[in-house]
Amino acid sequence: MARPIIFISDYGLDDEFVGVCHAVMSRTAPQARVIDLTHAILPQDVLRAALVLRQALPYLPSDAVLLAVVDPGVGSERRPVAVRAATGDRLLVGPDNGVLSLAWGEGDPAGAVEITSAEVLLRPLSRTFHGRDVFAPAAARLAAGWSLERLGPVADLSSLSRVEIPQVEVDAEGIHAEVLAVDRYGNVQTSARRGHVDTMGGPLEVVTPSGAVPLWRAETFAEVAEGQLAVIVDSGGWVSMVLNRGSAAEVLGLTAGDPIVFRPRGVG
Amino acid sequence: MARPIIFISDYGLDDEFVGVCHAVMSRTAPQARVIDLTHAILPQDVLRAALVLRQALPYLPSDAVLLAVVDPGVGSERRPVAVRAATGDRLLVGPDNGVLSLAWGEGDPAGAVEITSAEVLLRPLSRTFHGRDVFAPAAARLAAGWSLERLGPVADLSSLSRVEIPQVEVDAEGIHAEVLAVDRYGNVQTSARRGHVDTMGGPLEVVTPSGAVPLWRAETFAEVAEGQLAVIVDSGGWVSMVLNRGSAAEVLGLTAGDPIVFRPRGVG
Amino acid sequence: MARPIIFISDYGLDDEFVGVCHAVMSRTAPQARVIDLTHAILPQDVLRAALVLRQALPYLPSDAVLLAVVDPGVGSERRPVAVRAATGDRLLVGPDNGVLSLAWGEGDPAGAVEITSAEVLLRPLSRTFHGRDVFAPAAARLAAGWSLERLGPVADLSSLSRVEIPQVEVDAEGIHAEVLAVDRYGNVQTSARRGHVDTMGGPLEVVTPSGAVPLWRAETFAEVAEGQLAVIVDSGGWVSMVLNRGSAAEVLGLTAGDPIVFRPRGVG
Repeated sequence: MARPIIFISDYGLDDEFVGVCHAVMSRTAPQARVIDLTHAILPQDVLRAALVLRQALPYLPSDAVLLAVVDPGVGSERRPVAVRAATGDRLLVGPDNGVLSLAWGEGDPAGAVEITSAEVLLRPLSRTFHGRDVFAPAAARLAAGWSLERLGPVADLSSLSRVEIPQVEVDAEGIHAEVLAVDRYGNVQTSARRGHVDTMGGPLEVVTPSGAVPLWRAETFAEVAEGQLAVIVDSGGWVSMVLNRGSAAEVLGLTAGDPIVFRPRGVG
Repeated sequence: MARPIIFISDYGLDDEFVGVCHAVMSRTAPQARVIDLTHAILPQDVLRAALVLRQALPYLPSDAVLLAVVDPGVGSERRPVAVRAATGDRLLVGPDNGVLSLAWGEGDPAGAVEITSAEVLLRPLSRTFHGRDVFAPAAARLAAGWSLERLGPVADLSSLSRVEIPQVEVDAEGIHAEVLAVDRYGNVQTSARRGHVDTMGGPLEVVTPSGAVPLWRAETFAEVAEGQLAVIVDSGGWVSMVLNRGSAAEVLGLTAGDPIVFRPRGVG
Repeated sequence: MARPIIFISDYGLDDEFVGVCHAVMSRTAPQARVIDLTHAILPQDVLRAALVLRQALPYLPSDAVLLAVVDPGVGSERRPVAVRAATGDRLLVGPDNGVLSLAWGEGDPAGAVEITSAEVLLRPLSRTFHGRDVFAPAAARLAAGWSLERLGPVADLSSLSRVEIPQVEVDAEGIHAEVLAVDRYGNVQTSARRGHVDTMGGPLEVVTPSGAVPLWRAETFAEVAEGQLAVIVDSGGWVSMVLNRGSAAEVLGLTAGDPIVFRPRGVG
């Protein structure tokens, strides 16, 4: 049985990039199932891909090969790497730019190699499409049962790039967080966690770059009256703002990366 | 051999929701093929999903598990259910809000259970993402060979929610129907069926909220001259309006839900 | 082992067309892997689909069945055909409008039949959805091991439709080419090949319908300074214009089909 491959990228589905990577993998590992986690990561948003991968981890097969291709440095000196998770049986493949760093577990991974094997890389090796020529072939080899070490020389674990989850700061003014993402429904996911808002009693409001707006507290969409803005904890544990039958992002004028503050209502 | 799973939802492909559901299913039923029917149902459009599923039925594998997740009531008291089709071998999984009701056949289904088994539900059970935590796991169990009854207690068949197909009324004024959908090509699918327009002889026109527009009759796109609006019966048997090399929806200013009337030309 | 099917179309993913074709194929060839190359070909852009298929060829499984459905003539007299590639083991299925013609190899294919077998076509045969009723069933039969000849009568090889790759002309004014496509990143792919620009020494500029713009030469995105327009050879060997951290297409005001001229800088 081949390992399943979980594939995430910023390639989108408007071009054939994803399809070509699938085709390449099917040649090397025809038995491996390939699951598209998403390819709608905004172009070159390494942090977002790392966060999505981390949030999905508990739901992925325990023997999966995670293939993450968000690669603004393609063609430069950034290394292609394959990594063994800190615990468990998972393997990770992608550029060494931090995109894998929230998915290998706490601290250092259990192993890492630079992908250089001539048996793996496609020729001619393009300068712009390493998803096709480097990463998909490497992931397929691992899915088909190769050991990490056959892909290339061992890489120093401390040298691997990492991304930082946006920090949340709590001070007298309130909870300072950041918008992580806006989903299809217009729900606004922030970097605050359940504990942050649970410790703040009473009615809440959010301060956006455009002003302060009152929020209701809810556990689920169904509790929120139509047209009402509410704060909930989403399925990944992130504090999110939602609007029943509408787009919270649109009403609040928020987009990924925006700073926000949660605070008790009426203090501003 | 595992049963194939046919998956339809309003999750879209801009987020990782669909990919996470695939991952969850692959853990329980690694041998089951999962086919995405579409995930572009407009958010919370239960009726549209039910209609798309019904129209696709003749083309789906006879032993399929149909997984339909359009779920505006997630987190409320609406029940998650699994249903056995009235005839044949198909099983259906989704929220009890009518989304399954056009796919189980005429009258009542052959069986139904509420999905409550602790062996099935993922923990922690989120309040907002039952596709991941309830429906995908249940569909995967059925694909892997579980009986319906292992998922939870039997549900009263008459208690199941149903949706109504928009009615078509024929009177002296004409055929009163509704726009069901607009597709990628701008074709306008209506709730009228072949029989409705076949019984109305002579040249036709359509009355939209903006006025009356003459239509040609055609059997296929290739018969329609460029720039000409025509009425055809589409591949699902619905009366549709098309424009060769253009968008009928744009020219007519129509969108899903709009009322329209077909009538003999020049009577208005 | 069933042959893998590589599926390309202009169906998009906003409707259920692609999903229904997958379902149809899974009934006939449940063991065949189906890989979606892309379904985002612009509606009825036969040439674009042919070019994408040709460019992907080196990366596709050697025993694949290529299923290409871009079919503005559906319902007319255009023939549905299945073709054996000029060399190798690949089979191709689609409308006889040229969409397959860049993928079967140089000159004539090794064989061709018109798809007419009553064992293959679905009934009732729609006039508008031959992807579902003709092409997907035929591709699935071939994937399951049928010979080409079982699909219908032999077709005259010289009668098959072909598309022409946009020509590039080089004269005293410069290299006259055409925009083939704009991708998700705003990169502008042109019909010029590496040799065209390599033989033109010194600094370059591009003449678009809006004027002349200087270009840098680069091998990879990472060499291009932020905000700088550059000319590179893309992963398919086409001369392309890119903008680091921006959309070259937007800055240059270019879209598929536009004529452009590459010339030495400052001659105009």
